[in-house]
Order: sequence, then C-alpha cells, then structure tokens
Amino acid sequence: MKKLFFTEIRVIYGDTDAMGVAYHANYLRWFEVGRTELLRETGYAYSEIEKYPVWLPVTQAHVEYKKPARYDDVVLVGSYVAELGFASMLINYEITNKESGELLVTGYTRHGITDSEMRPIKLKRVYPELYEMFSAISADSEK
Amino acid sequence: MKKLFFTEIRVIYGDTDAMGVAYHANYLRWFEVGRTELLRETGYAYSEIEKYPVWLPVTQAHVEYKKPARYDDVVLVGSYVAELGFASMLINYEITNKESGELLVTGYTRHGITDSEMRPIKLKRVYPELYEMFSAISADSEK
Amino acid sequence: MKKLFFTEIRVIYGDTDAMGVAYHANYLRWFEVGRTELLRETGYAYSEIEKYPVWLPVTQAHVEYKKPARYDDVVLVGSYVAELGFASMLINYEITNKESGELLVTGYTRHGITDSEMRPIKLKRVYPELYEMFSAISADSEK
Amino acid sequence: MKKLFFTEIRVIYGDTDAMGVAYHANYLRWFEVGRTELLRETGYAYSEIEKYPVWLPVTQAHVEYKKPARYDDVVLVGSYVAELGFASMLINYEITNKESGELLVTGYTRHGITDSEMRPIKLKRVYPELYEMFSAISADSEK
Repeated sequence: MKKLFFTEIRVIYGDTDAMGVAYHANYLRWFEVGRTELLRETGYAYSEIEKYPVWLPVTQAHVEYKKPARYDDVVLVGSYVAELGFASMLINYEITNKESGELLVTGYTRHGITDSEMRPIKLKRVYPELYEMFSAISADSEK
Repeated sequence: MKKLFFTEIRVIYGDTDAMGVAYHANYLRWFEVGRTELLRETGYAYSEIEKYPVWLPVTQAHVEYKKPARYDDVVLVGSYVAELGFASMLINYEITNKESGELLVTGYTRHGITDSEMRPIKLKRVYPELYEMFSAISADSEK
Repeated sequence: MKKLFFTEIRVIYGDTDAMGVAYHANYLRWFEVGRTELLRETGYAYSEIEKYPVWLPVTQAHVEYKKPARYDDVVLVGSYVAELGFASMLINYEITNKESGELLVTGYTRHGITDSEMRPIKLKRVYPELYEMFSAISADSEK
Repeated sequence: MKKLFFTEIRVIYGDTDAMGVAYHANYLRWFEVGRTELLRETGYAYSEIEKYPVWLPVTQAHVEYKKPARYDDVVLVGSYVAELGFASMLINYEITNKESGELLVTGYTRHGITDSEMRPIKLKRVYPELYEMFSAISADSEK
C-alpha cells in the first residue's frame, strides 16, 4: 500500500565528484530533502514538529547505488513512511532520474522519536495528533 | 582477525548541523577518509590504483548512529577490509571519540571492483599483485 | 539596468551548522544554483555551453553576510550578469529570505571564459551566438 | 611581519567535482580548518573562546582561485591574523600544493567579535587576555 511522495532536485557541480557523478554521501542529503517535504505534505513541517518538542534523530541509514546521477540531471526523490513504531519510524526512499525514469538509488533511514534531550517518547500516548498524522502517511497504517 | 587502521579527523563547524552535532551524511565522507588512508597504508594509494585502471565504486553504504560527534571533537575512523570477493570488497568502519573512547558510529561500504567503464573485473586474475595487496589487509585473508 | 533572475532554495539541516544558521560556505553552493538557473533561462543551460566547449571556471568569489538563513527558511537567490568582458564574466548575487524579504547575503563570482583546457577564449569572435546570449542578460549589454 | 601558521589537508573525492578539481566552495571549509588550528596554536581553541562567550561570526569571505587542487593532493593552508580591530578581525589565507609548492588560492575572511547574541563587543576592554592573545598572532600587533 506504499504511496510515494516525490520531490525534485537538480544536481549541481557541488554535488558531483571527480568520477563525474554525484558523490555518494549526497544521497543522504537528498533523502533529507525528500523526508522534509514528505512530512510537510502531511500538514506538520519538521520545523513545527520540533517545537512540541519531538525530534526524529537518524539512527540508521542505508543506501544501495544502482546507477549514477550526473551534473544537471533532475532526480526525483520518492519517499514514504514504511514503519511507524512506538518510538521509532522507518522511511524508505527511491531516487530516479526524472527524464529517463531509471532507478538510481534505493535506501532507508531509521529514526528515533524523542524529546529534545534525545529520550524516546511514546508518540501515540504523548502526542496522539502527531501519531495520527504520521500514521496517515504510513504504509502499515491499516494495522 | 580484524585489525583496524586508524585515521584522525577534527570536526569543524562545516561538519555540524543546527542540532549541534555532526550532520549524519558526513560520516560517509569520513568513511572515505578512513578507507583512503587504509589503502595508502598498503602501499597502493587509491590515486595509483585508479591508474591500472581499477575503480572501487561504492555500491552500498550503511551507517548506525550510536552517539553524536560534536564541534571540535577529534574522531578516530577505524577501518578494515572485511571481505574480498572476485569483483567486490566490503570495508567495515568504527568511529570513536578519540578523547572519551566512546563508540559513535559503525558501518560499512560495499564496493565493486571495476575497470574505468564500471565493468566488473576479476582482480585475482587480471591484477594479481593488487589482489595480493588487498588480501593482505583483509580480515578473511587466511581463507 | 540590472534585472535579477530568482531561484528558490529550501534550507535543510545539512546546510546548517552548530551555530544554528546556514554554514557560510553553502552560500557559494547557492550562488551556483542561482547562476545555473540564470543561464538556463537564456536558453543555453551550462550543461550545453560546456559542449561547445566553453567553460566558465570561477576565478574569484566574494560574499558579504548580513543576516543568517536558518533551518527550513526559503531563500531567494537573485542573480544577474554584471559585466561581460572578452574572456571573463562577473555575476552578482543577492540572497533574501523569501518570507520576510530581508536581505541576507550579497556577493559575486568572477569567471573566466575558457576552452576545456582552461585557455581563455574570445567569446565574441569564437562563438558569437553565445556572446549574444550572455550579452542579452548582461546589465551592461547596451555598451 | 606576517607569519603564517600551516595546516595540512588531504583532498578526498567528496571535495572534488565533475570538472576533476576541488569544488570552489570547499576552500571556505579549508579556511575554517586553517583558522581553527591557528587559534588553537595560540592556546585558546575556538571551542574555548566560545565559552567566554566570544563569537567570531564570518561577515565577509573572499577567495581568488589561481590553480586547482585535485583528488589526493595535500594542500597547505597558511593563515594569519592580518588586522585586529575593536570588534572585528581579518584573517588572510594562502593555500598551496604541498608537493609542488604552487600557490593555489588566496583569500580572507572578516569576522565580527560578538557575544553569543551577535552583539559587537570591545574585546580589548571586556576580555583583555583574549585581546592579548589575538594581538600576539596579529601581523599589525606592533601598532
């Protein structure tokens, strides 16, 4: 039931390396762009979520590189909430070349759900309206 | 039989983010610093390996974030070759805070072993001296 | 007669530093985003200009920081060609906060106009159609 | 009377771009590395200066690009305090290729001297010991 939310990014020289392709660490930046816009779409920008305060620190990141993005390519970052736990969340990503449609990269980031001192919080109990929102965009929301 | 090779990095403002900690994507840059010095230690800098030409494009990257690094911390990037296959290589990393000794991050990168057009090459057959070198620093070299 | 061309950029965590503001080096990245879109607007994307081949290597960069951009701000990068010489070009930038309209940063980049081996070329003579295009977007085009 | 303090940096892939050279914005990162070590040399690391609290926000940056740095080059960042004013400081930089000795980049950063709310402070009066320290490494210290 996954439904991806898409964000566009234009690759600049600053994103590339001397191999002539986008430097591999930059996909983690692009994952951030994707999930920021994914959360904004739900009505709660991350900049607002932080004020609760609810933080979503990255606890794991994983990237699989299939094909390179190159200078001036437009890439599409597709993302969705794959799992929503009591104090953690998993976001999946698929990055494609917008013009060719080719799949370039897949990956995920796992996030804690914490207060501003990085202590886990049970979102469902403490901020049920936030939980509802995340749940609405989660692939396993029917469970 | 793993034997880590260590490289030091001082965290600058440019590495941190508004959370007050090192931005999570930068650990992939630090993995690159670590493996570059690991390879140099063996006698073949990556800049020389490229001239064969043998490329080691990153095909997977994985990071587990345990504790944050902060501005002006010195981090130690420990790395070693965990697996050496026919046309691929796995490098493991452990990043610690030099002063406190705390483990901050673990992770790995998986690399193809290719020619300059990204076609896999059987290193052992094509460049046995390079294979020997990688093998000497590999944790599973006795196999 | 300057006429600015505007591009929008959303500030992500990866752009900020532990001071809580956008890291100062990133404005040079944003200048790149601005001039890339400025050139594209004229009908010749930089990725096409390179194929002539005409390169525009940065020879000088200058930034004046007036107010900080912060996480999740949308900044507007305004840019225009301020001078067009025989083998060089000056591009000016003004970065503002989109919401408040406040001026955050001004600056410029100076570029050589070279072939792919970085030798200066007299654009007007060698590629007059490119010269015309740059001239059309130049503040001193009436000269 | 200028006396440069030198710091070494090894260029990684993450620093380069598809032109095959170090991306121009990264020199501002390297300026930061240089001035951080310059300040540390005096006995007050910037991480300690901040605790007074004294901040040195960048108000201007200027870079002149003469020759490129490339992958795996070691560059030397030479820096010194060129001017020390009541509430501002100018730091000059010269970046050379360590092996060839060639000058790659020159530039400067101008800094405010402020409290943690970015209000200018007269360092000489408020923290004379810090003023003395900066003065000792300043090219115009005899004045």
